Amino acid sequence: KVSGYLNDLSGRLSVPITIIYNDEWKEKENGVSILKAKKYLNEPFLLLMSDHIFDSNILKELSANELNGDELILAVDENLKNKLIDIDDVTKVKQNSGKIEDIGKEITDYNGYDTGIFYSSPALFTALEKISLNGKTTLSSAVKVLADEGKAKAFNIKNKFWIDVDDPAALKKAEKELINLLKEKPTDGPVSRYLNRPLSIRISKLLSRFNITPNQISSFSFILSIAAAAIFFFGRSYFWLLTGGIIAQLSSVIDGCDGEIARLKFMKSKYGGWFDAVLDRYADAFLLLGLTWNIYSLNNLLSYLLIGFFAIIGSFMLSYTADKYDELMRNKINETGKRLFRLGRDIRLFIIFLGAVTNQVLIALILIALTSNVEVIRRLIVCRDEK
Amino acid sequence: KVSGYLNDLSGRLSVPITIIYNDEWKEKENGVSILKAKKYLNEPFLLLMSDHIFDSNILKELSANELNGDELILAVDENLKNKLIDIDDVTKVKQNSGKIEDIGKEITDYNGYDTGIFYSSPALFTALEKISLNGKTTLSSAVKVLADEGKAKAFNIKNKFWIDVDDPAALKKAEKELINLLKEKPTDGPVSRYLNRPLSIRISKLLSRFNITPNQISSFSFILSIAAAAIFFFGRSYFWLLTGGIIAQLSSVIDGCDGEIARLKFMKSKYGGWFDAVLDRYADAFLLLGLTWNIYSLNNLLSYLLIGFFAIIGSFMLSYTADKYDELMRNKINETGKRLFRLGRDIRLFIIFLGAVTNQVLIALILIALTSNVEVIRRLIVCRDEK
Repeated sequence: KVSGYLNDLSGRLSVPITIIYNDEWKEKENGVSILKAKKYLNEPFLLLMSDHIFDSNILKELSANELNGDELILAVDENLKNKLIDIDDVTKVKQNSGKIEDIGKEITDYNGYDTGIFYSSPALFTALEKISLNGKTTLSSAVKVLADEGKAKAFNIKNKFWIDVDDPAALKKAEKELINLLKEKPTDGPVSRYLNRPLSIRISKLLSRFNITPNQISSFSFILSIAAAAIFFFGRSYFWLLTGGIIAQLSSVIDGCDGEIARLKFMKSKYGGWFDAVLDRYADAFLLLGLTWNIYSLNNLLSYLLIGFFAIIGSFMLSYTADKYDELMRNKINETGKRLFRLGRDIRLFIIFLGAVTNQVLIALILIALTSNVEVIRRLIVCRDEK
Repeated sequence: KVSGYLNDLSGRLSVPITIIYNDEWKEKENGVSILKAKKYLNEPFLLLMSDHIFDSNILKELSANELNGDELILAVDENLKNKLIDIDDVTKVKQNSGKIEDIGKEITDYNGYDTGIFYSSPALFTALEKISLNGKTTLSSAVKVLADEGKAKAFNIKNKFWIDVDDPAALKKAEKELINLLKEKPTDGPVSRYLNRPLSIRISKLLSRFNITPNQISSFSFILSIAAAAIFFFGRSYFWLLTGGIIAQLSSVIDGCDGEIARLKFMKSKYGGWFDAVLDRYADAFLLLGLTWNIYSLNNLLSYLLIGFFAIIGSFMLSYTADKYDELMRNKINETGKRLFRLGRDIRLFIIFLGAVTNQVLIALILIALTSNVEVIRRLIVCRDEK
């Protein structure tokens, strides 16, 4: 099952994976598994526990460290009060100004936890061979050997998320923690944060049980939008308007789930984000077209068509200018420390929803047409003075 | 005049500029000017002649070289047949496998020209002080001193453009060469390359005499598009259609001039390119709206409105997906060595022009609606399989 998954992963990521079998896994401890990799590794390498889940920034920062030819660096969690720790099972670490002095499950004098994330030189193999002469086969014993030689360093993960998923209780904790992390998305607009996100997280929690990909969720949200647009386009009563408005808002909620599932299942990809963005642009255009035709067909006023046209191009232009605006304004954003207010998709779809359920489509379209185009012009003006 | 320009430039680029006055410029030669900068520079620096124009890639490549603490590297043009050279005035260089052996205006045994582009350590100041003891004040003499010590290296610019603008004849040559460089824009589509570019270059040549900024040209091209769109929108005869079509194509031609003037006058900026792109998106939308209303108001067919809608979102989505598509497909593009065919703005506006002048607006809109949206879908599909 594991090798099948790894072969599939290797293909998906275009990264070669060499699978090494350890037929002594039952009799001996984890150091033996590592030693099997010796002949494949004569340069610094990362060593990870396959059942640990952690913030990938730990890896980035750890591997940015300078590693001398015979050293090992262990990512250490210095937060002794970390609630995700199973204190009976975790390996403890005693370190002193970045040097590991002691390590083991049973030590009582410690100031950190072993996260199972290592950046090591091949010197680790020599240490493993050394301890095997005394019949020892744990990774910790080998790290202790390096520590005694002054070659084992500790790297502080500074409260970043990590968890060892050893049993069903830990799995539950890990799931809860990952779900909690979804709530903190700094780019969320107000409607996302207070309305859509709480709902979409609940849905994602359910969806995560199934084998559903983020792109499938993006597609489903898109289909909902098209359905809402069609209802706006053809429906001629308040009942249909209300139905369309609710479906549009629902699609906005579901539109949060693709990213959540991607983050939960570590399936984030550049393509996925782009695919979602492209579908969102089409969905926005269809929804606005549906609303425009809804009011135009009732009144036949050219001005209604024009308002719809401006709402459509305004929405497009907001998205089209967003990346470059962020790039040009980055210095300013960093300076003030907060993100500039963004008239995002969450707000746009919420205005559509409100316009539909209150039967005030024209006002919703005028609002979108005005705010979006004014914001684009504002961006053109403020960026002109930025370097 | 020069210091005023530099102060202005310093503000525009947010780069501090220290101006150093050399009151001996008339009596002594150029080495004296350099020596005045000694106390400001105790690290490697670039030394450039203010009247040379050159391809900025020379600077990038030159300064990427490793420079030892007491060395100087001179960018050397090894193309002895370079027609832009004034052979009586140019400083000649004799180099041997990257080491300069001799330099001077009068030497007869040479294999390259001094481009006046230097990357140097402060050792140059010591050499200048040394020659000044013998009453010499030319930069070449100081370089010769370093060359004799084996510390002057030559860097081959490999036929990149550079010219020394010493007199009106050289200025003419430089202008012609810069204009010629405009013709080679690898991102140009077929209509740009064979129709718009030859015309826009002629216009840019004229415009370059005046104090007109690229953004002003972008704005003018935008106004022309809006005029064409208004003519399409309100005009109800072939005469107006023809007029609108010609103005639309003219705006497409002028839309090439902003970039040309920016490159000619070294005024290229991120903001300028973005400003132009944003105006182009609005212009496209207005033109397509004008054409759509033109045929819809005559026939009142909903399908005409929908075709116009799809033409508008298709055009938008082509631009919206372009950057990400290029990024995701970069490997493939580099592999095949050629850029993938791009259904660019030049083609879109040319279809609008042809549709208007042949009185086949509906066909033009169908063509744009179909090709653009099909291309967007194609992009979504092919990128899915790229890593």
